[in-house]
Amino acid sequence: MPSRRDAEALDRADPLAPLRERFALPEGVVYLDGNSLGPLPRVAAERVRRVVEEEWGRDLIRSWNLHGWIDLPARVGDKIARLVGAEPGEVVTADSTSLDLFKLAAAALELRPGRRTIVSERDNFPTDLYVLEGLARLLDRGHELRTVPRDEVLASLDDDVALVVLTQVDYRSGALWDLAVATRAIHDRGALVLWDLAHSAGALPVDLAGAGADLAVGCGYKFLNGGPGAPAFLYAARRHQEALRTPIQGWLGHAEPFAFEAAYRPAPGIDRFRAGTPPVLSLAALDAALDLFAEVETEALRAKSMALGTLFLERVEARCAGFGVEPACPRNAEARGSQVSLRHPEGYAIVQALAARRVIGDFRVPDILRFGLAPLYLRYVDVWDAVEHLAQVLERHEWERPELRTRSKVT
Amino acid sequence: MPSRRDAEALDRADPLAPLRERFALPEGVVYLDGNSLGPLPRVAAERVRRVVEEEWGRDLIRSWNLHGWIDLPARVGDKIARLVGAEPGEVVTADSTSLDLFKLAAAALELRPGRRTIVSERDNFPTDLYVLEGLARLLDRGHELRTVPRDEVLASLDDDVALVVLTQVDYRSGALWDLAVATRAIHDRGALVLWDLAHSAGALPVDLAGAGADLAVGCGYKFLNGGPGAPAFLYAARRHQEALRTPIQGWLGHAEPFAFEAAYRPAPGIDRFRAGTPPVLSLAALDAALDLFAEVETEALRAKSMALGTLFLERVEARCAGFGVEPACPRNAEARGSQVSLRHPEGYAIVQALAARRVIGDFRVPDILRFGLAPLYLRYVDVWDAVEHLAQVLERHEWERPELRTRSKVT
Repeated sequence: MPSRRDAEALDRADPLAPLRERFALPEGVVYLDGNSLGPLPRVAAERVRRVVEEEWGRDLIRSWNLHGWIDLPARVGDKIARLVGAEPGEVVTADSTSLDLFKLAAAALELRPGRRTIVSERDNFPTDLYVLEGLARLLDRGHELRTVPRDEVLASLDDDVALVVLTQVDYRSGALWDLAVATRAIHDRGALVLWDLAHSAGALPVDLAGAGADLAVGCGYKFLNGGPGAPAFLYAARRHQEALRTPIQGWLGHAEPFAFEAAYRPAPGIDRFRAGTPPVLSLAALDAALDLFAEVETEALRAKSMALGTLFLERVEARCAGFGVEPACPRNAEARGSQVSLRHPEGYAIVQALAARRVIGDFRVPDILRFGLAPLYLRYVDVWDAVEHLAQVLERHEWERPELRTRSKVT
Repeated sequence: MPSRRDAEALDRADPLAPLRERFALPEGVVYLDGNSLGPLPRVAAERVRRVVEEEWGRDLIRSWNLHGWIDLPARVGDKIARLVGAEPGEVVTADSTSLDLFKLAAAALELRPGRRTIVSERDNFPTDLYVLEGLARLLDRGHELRTVPRDEVLASLDDDVALVVLTQVDYRSGALWDLAVATRAIHDRGALVLWDLAHSAGALPVDLAGAGADLAVGCGYKFLNGGPGAPAFLYAARRHQEALRTPIQGWLGHAEPFAFEAAYRPAPGIDRFRAGTPPVLSLAALDAALDLFAEVETEALRAKSMALGTLFLERVEARCAGFGVEPACPRNAEARGSQVSLRHPEGYAIVQALAARRVIGDFRVPDILRFGLAPLYLRYVDVWDAVEHLAQVLERHEWERPELRTRSKVT
């Protein structure tokens, strides 16, 4: 890859390139943080405006039926199902990832009543560990969360393991679990698996059904571009649904919410994991954002994402050698999610210096520079330019001299 | 109250009357369902537009700090605190009422480890009962939900009662608990009380601190006008906060979410009851809507609300006698929340016939016609007209002949 012109040529040949125009990306920004907060799809802005002014403002309470608010969590779930290898009726949107994890983990433990161990990765996203530890504490009947290093997880399973909770794409390194291989190994020990798809959904093909996965949760505001704090989604394989009980028996998870029956009866299927009233404005934004995915195959997203990542790492090797920056992600694209990560002791300051140049990445403790590569809207030239900026920040020691942080264009 | 002109005169004298213009109420609609979904404050529409286009669209991930998204749940909580007699730092917005009830009830039971009974009203809003029953089932250590008729609740308390969960304003009858009297009686038996303020907050003065209440939850989308599915709020008296543990240990309830520590440490104070990422669009609408309350005292809201209710019932007596409509709410305004309820065997059809006349009320099984009276935007003439429409529906038997439902003006 000798020149920026080659990157431009890749953009001209990119079948996904037209989708960039569907986002309201600010001029001059290279946005590599869509794995933390996806940018605004223009259609989402228009949809939220309509929901506010016409549905809430004009049609008021009737909108629950007239505009289908009441079924929106299921309809949005069905759109996500297609992206994660699930069938309609296996996914519903509700609450946050943390809450959905709590609900599904509690339900899963009931399916393995004789077992007392929950296994997760030591370096899993902390909220997953907090939630699981809190659940074990709440239940107070001997459950224990056992966290083990990534490469020991599968070998560590024994007959006391009820549930294994893994995040498919590691939030720092971007390292990718093989969904099918891990699921099979977990099932071989008689345990259930709950996949956290926070950094997967919308970025790469996920085949929950093909892998035989049991349960999953995921995030609406990262690669799905649903807006800040968009509702999360949860998945339960149909074969488990009727046996699963939610720990939080809210009215919208009831079989007939508006019958106002005295006793709780779970809704059939995945809807039982709804609880309270969904945040319609936030949910509508997610619903609209998902329509951008209707036009693409996840395989095409994955191909471009891998190419963006490979280009990024090649350019880092070419331009940033000798400055103490090391890859902190798998070099093999097949083993990596839709991000690249670098390591540098001054990672925080470097990310700040890049932001001053309008290259938006992310820092994660202790020393990780994280760059999300969202194939829906990123160009090859964006990756090219980002690494040029990074090289200049390093060459000029801009991270040492914040007063010199410039907003210069790449030259 | 002999004529509609008198109602007009009351509106002219109403100090709250100017606030009506702050809402985008559709022309010609009498909206008596603001206790189910409050109407759109104009400022909320503008705020959501700004959050979508400028904060999400332009400033992207930086908005978490730049526009204070990260602290929004606490700031909105502080606005609500003023309406429910709490101090800043005692209220936070999070999730839904169902979820907040789950979290606080679980935390409360830990404070009364030797006790095994949860008491609630038999006719409480069903989701409250579902959630409590589900919690008892989940804990599986002998807790029992005991539901008793309203007038037996306080007398039924014994030394095994850990927690009493009461809804201050009954969702059907509108009957009002005396917060202070009930709290004292519950404390006298050594139990904790958790108040559901779904139909109270924003409609009448609530003095949680004055009553010595322990815990409370409430709804953002009813009288607070936060929009469909707006986040709920939860309250914990400061004296309890450090002892309360949330059952759902999400990262935003951690003392330092962005330190990504391996172990959970609860945030100081009420923030520990946050869990996942808040739905910012929905939360921003609520935040904006609450500013309408900054200009009014809850006592003024209450005075107008009682007057509206009294007028409503007087007009029903004057105009609807002999048609089988009976009050299903307390006749004494002091004992009633901000709604009136009527009973009629054909309640559902009557509510439909009223809707065809653009008078929007609500039906609740089995036979309750429910009319919310939101003093921020309702006029005395609205109440007058609503009852005129009701009288005409009854006189003309419109509920029997849906094909004759007209959109006629009141004559």
